[in-house]
Amino acid sequence: MEQLKARILRDGRVLPNSVVKVDSFLNHQVDPALIQAIGEWLAGHFADTPFTKVLTIEASGIHIAYATALAAGVPMVYAKKRKALTQGDDLYHSEVWSYTRQETYRITVARPYLEASDRVLIVDDILAEGSALLGLVDIVRQSGAGMVGIGVAIEKSFQAGRGRLEELGVRVHALARIASLEGGTIQFLE
Amino acid sequence: MEQLKARILRDGRVLPNSVVKVDSFLNHQVDPALIQAIGEWLAGHFADTPFTKVLTIEASGIHIAYATALAAGVPMVYAKKRKALTQGDDLYHSEVWSYTRQETYRITVARPYLEASDRVLIVDDILAEGSALLGLVDIVRQSGAGMVGIGVAIEKSFQAGRGRLEELGVRVHALARIASLEGGTIQFLE
Repeated sequence: MEQLKARILRDGRVLPNSVVKVDSFLNHQVDPALIQAIGEWLAGHFADTPFTKVLTIEASGIHIAYATALAAGVPMVYAKKRKALTQGDDLYHSEVWSYTRQETYRITVARPYLEASDRVLIVDDILAEGSALLGLVDIVRQSGAGMVGIGVAIEKSFQAGRGRLEELGVRVHALARIASLEGGTIQFLE
Repeated sequence: MEQLKARILRDGRVLPNSVVKVDSFLNHQVDPALIQAIGEWLAGHFADTPFTKVLTIEASGIHIAYATALAAGVPMVYAKKRKALTQGDDLYHSEVWSYTRQETYRITVARPYLEASDRVLIVDDILAEGSALLGLVDIVRQSGAGMVGIGVAIEKSFQAGRGRLEELGVRVHALARIASLEGGTIQFLE
């Protein structure tokens, strides 16, 4: 998606340890028109395999998943990273390792919101090592729902996430695939 | 907003300790068409005092703030509840007490995304005791930005939040004001 790639080149900042910071428009400050375009793109890309739910994980996937769900006319569900006191016990859960926070955490989805009759599109902001997305795939499988695929705004293609997800037979689509951040320069895959 | 009140009456569930669970359409599973309508309503309500940023806090305010920002054509910023390793030190922060989690946590906003020239509308899903919103007001004041007001989907009017915010001179608007949950029955303020 050329609009997103141009924005990454203009406003993304490359930090040490292969981090690309996009928090001026994607995941801290958010440009709503860009997110709407990303959501419409993802909904259109997966329109050939209709889905009944968009699933993401709090927090930085929520607005992108919402925009996708709005474009597709289906509900969005976001997995929670911590159990709220009001949440009850009727939950799917999975364990996720966070590289940015260096800790394991439990993600949960209330069972009534993912059913075996659902067909699920998973959406997130960034695919790097794929930990959070593997946790979401695990939860979809527990529910018995169909797995339509995974759509992300940005993929760091030099990390292992896509490979791990494709090994599970999951279709992955990224709007901007970053091949390299070496020397502080952002290079996209063609 | 009649659409939201009708949805709360149909799908909300009253739990003990004055909790109303709306996680089938507002803050776990999300109905995008309803959220879009809420965002357009809030943007319209505050259109008389134009704002340059919509500010919320992760996670359950994000989609509502996004929908409001999209309708108004301005950026959205969400405060983070935990510091990410990539976030740097150039931050505003405030301390927030969570009643649902029974703990204090620090919320942060990167300084470049709130400037003294900004005029800020704060948006969240639910106003009860007002802790998170007081933290956001504190951050807006630190930034020197103008405070346009606070818009929330649901207010529990029998709790102290609105009073605390109005004491600070902040304009508060709620689309559904719940007067009472006594006996498990949802009663709205007129």
